[in-house]
Amino acid sequence: MGDPTGRPRFGANWVPSAGWFHGWLDLRPDDVRRDFEDLAGLGLDHVRIFPVWPWIQPNRGLVRASALDDVARVLDLAAELGLDVAVDLVQGHLSSFDFLPSWVLTWHRRSVFTDADVVDGISRYVQAVVGAVADRPNLLAVTTGNEVNNLWPGNDTDPVASTAWARTVVATARAAAPHVPVVHSLYDDVFYDPAHPFHPHDVTEVGDLSSVHSWVFNGVARVDPPAAPDRPLGRATLSHAAYLVELAAATATDPQRPVWLQEVGAPAPEVGPTHVEGFVRETLAAAFASPRLWGVTWWCSHDLHRSLVDLPEREYDLGLFTTDHEPKPVARAYAAAIREWAPAASSRPALVCDVDLLEAPDRRAEVAPGRAFHRAWMEASAGGPLAILPASRAADSAALATRGIGELRSLPSQ
Amino acid sequence: MGDPTGRPRFGANWVPSAGWFHGWLDLRPDDVRRDFEDLAGLGLDHVRIFPVWPWIQPNRGLVRASALDDVARVLDLAAELGLDVAVDLVQGHLSSFDFLPSWVLTWHRRSVFTDADVVDGISRYVQAVVGAVADRPNLLAVTTGNEVNNLWPGNDTDPVASTAWARTVVATARAAAPHVPVVHSLYDDVFYDPAHPFHPHDVTEVGDLSSVHSWVFNGVARVDPPAAPDRPLGRATLSHAAYLVELAAATATDPQRPVWLQEVGAPAPEVGPTHVEGFVRETLAAAFASPRLWGVTWWCSHDLHRSLVDLPEREYDLGLFTTDHEPKPVARAYAAAIREWAPAASSRPALVCDVDLLEAPDRRAEVAPGRAFHRAWMEASAGGPLAILPASRAADSAALATRGIGELRSLPSQ
Repeated sequence: MGDPTGRPRFGANWVPSAGWFHGWLDLRPDDVRRDFEDLAGLGLDHVRIFPVWPWIQPNRGLVRASALDDVARVLDLAAELGLDVAVDLVQGHLSSFDFLPSWVLTWHRRSVFTDADVVDGISRYVQAVVGAVADRPNLLAVTTGNEVNNLWPGNDTDPVASTAWARTVVATARAAAPHVPVVHSLYDDVFYDPAHPFHPHDVTEVGDLSSVHSWVFNGVARVDPPAAPDRPLGRATLSHAAYLVELAAATATDPQRPVWLQEVGAPAPEVGPTHVEGFVRETLAAAFASPRLWGVTWWCSHDLHRSLVDLPEREYDLGLFTTDHEPKPVARAYAAAIREWAPAASSRPALVCDVDLLEAPDRRAEVAPGRAFHRAWMEASAGGPLAILPASRAADSAALATRGIGELRSLPSQ
Repeated sequence: MGDPTGRPRFGANWVPSAGWFHGWLDLRPDDVRRDFEDLAGLGLDHVRIFPVWPWIQPNRGLVRASALDDVARVLDLAAELGLDVAVDLVQGHLSSFDFLPSWVLTWHRRSVFTDADVVDGISRYVQAVVGAVADRPNLLAVTTGNEVNNLWPGNDTDPVASTAWARTVVATARAAAPHVPVVHSLYDDVFYDPAHPFHPHDVTEVGDLSSVHSWVFNGVARVDPPAAPDRPLGRATLSHAAYLVELAAATATDPQRPVWLQEVGAPAPEVGPTHVEGFVRETLAAAFASPRLWGVTWWCSHDLHRSLVDLPEREYDLGLFTTDHEPKPVARAYAAAIREWAPAASSRPALVCDVDLLEAPDRRAEVAPGRAFHRAWMEASAGGPLAILPASRAADSAALATRGIGELRSLPSQ
């Protein structure tokens, strides 16, 4: 499923320059093409797209044919520019907004994750959307939805229900498009919060590859000294994407399972304007050290127009391009980092972790940013590529060989 | 504003035969025209339409121009058939479903009624929608939204805030279309439930006329003996629309203020198939007895296709027409009732009510269906037209003359 040279896929999360995701309600092919020209011009090979669920399925029994046509049309427009497309399904959650159909609200309030009728409705939706694009040669992957764990606690769930939901959606998508990878998508509380009702298992065992989203506003930036224009960014900030990639690779039972850095971006104020280029270069160089890295998809393609209101301040300025299609410094840095990609070393040491996230999700806090394990990994990885290995798997020499792990290092005693 | 002959306006609440209100997302002029042909063919003069708020204003800062064009296009299609159009604004609530934009949900949760930014956003929406249709000669009226009190308790409010909200929306709509009546719309808990945070004042003092929605599933049908195919419908069921019209007329400080029977329908099982025609005939004959009746708008134009799910069972079968455009018995009965309209008598007696709903909204339960006042009115009104008069206004002979009230009757002692 990966590039035979081991070169990761490089792309961008497509945030339409015209009207943000509301642009789906008035899809204008010329606008889409113009956005995709920007991205193709940067040397990217794919976009990740986010159809908006309640507009496509406004009634549980109605999936709008015209909306499916729009999704397929976006794939065709991408194909014109040589771009592959990863399609996310249940949006769901986008940049602080929950898009939820009226049939799960107020009088019809019921959990997206646990109500049998809702899950049945979602299955119909998934079948229809994936079915509408399955024949497109540039369909790259299908994702359950964008960070669906953000729909909790608004929607009840528990770890068993969350996993069952993901397996249902993945199975439905796979049946509709058996030839492309199907991926589950969760933000990083899944790795760090011991009470989170979505488990690392969901990322590393469900679907065809693991996906991670690296956002340094998750608390990791606070591990470093306070940011300042005249001081370089700290190691926690610069290595967080690599840390998540390594955690996902270390947790998967399949030592060959690829990891998709599906979202990474340079948010203010954690990454100030003078630090953007260094952030991009070092973040990606660190991630490239993992032989399991399948792809990188930058968040996001285009800035948001200021006429749109109520978004968190940082969301307006995350684009590679302005809404006027001007490439920003982050875009040039991303293109340069891609050019500088080199294969990961065939062998590297691993830091042994007491916690196996599959077996002990209640111990997730022990690998969270700022804790001893994270600090040890981030400091040691400054000296060169460093894998992570759960202690419980240290005796599996075949898996170690497959992962290219040589020397095993222990956490310094405290 | 009324017909100079005193003849009420007769229309239907337009429920699109194709896709219910979801049809707005794929507006097809031929489908709209076909629906309107049905209604014009029945002799109706207007439709009430329900644009869906979150699809028109998906971001607080974005009102979609194409969606405004769609609303205006519906007015033009209605004009082709000689139909006037009443436009409802904040939907909001439609047949058990709440349509709410992402900017008032979950992370952005805030009350539609009390949050200043949301109210500001709604004002922009109202301005835009009314502005888009203000120049259409067939614009009949503008309504704040369909039964916006259904958005509570999902959205916090209190009586003061509810009134302020209504006044803001009405003022904004009036500014955009000063030449048409602007109406507030609430379901009937506003008249009957002493704890309801929307007051009768909102109906009878805000906007240019009062609107009432008569649904006999509100408990009124239970005042009658249980329904049976071989027994006529009871007096409570048949007189409820007239009762609400009289209550609204009696409550208004302006004795000339018109009352719009904005919704009335024949729901199952309260109105069984053998009773539909009698229900329509007697319900409307009773309502015609009020000289203040401005118009009748039947709920609704078309049945719902069974492929749409999750609606309350009764909602599927309320149409004057099937989804295949066949007129149902209710349509023939409505057309016949319209033909049989005759002006209200110039004078009639009134039943004096201890409760003035403007002064004592906490006493609303005393006029609720099944209580002594309601029972006395419904029994006495079987003998002929009977107004309602708050005792506190019995000395206002000018108002009594204006309302055509002759004899004053007291509630029989209990």
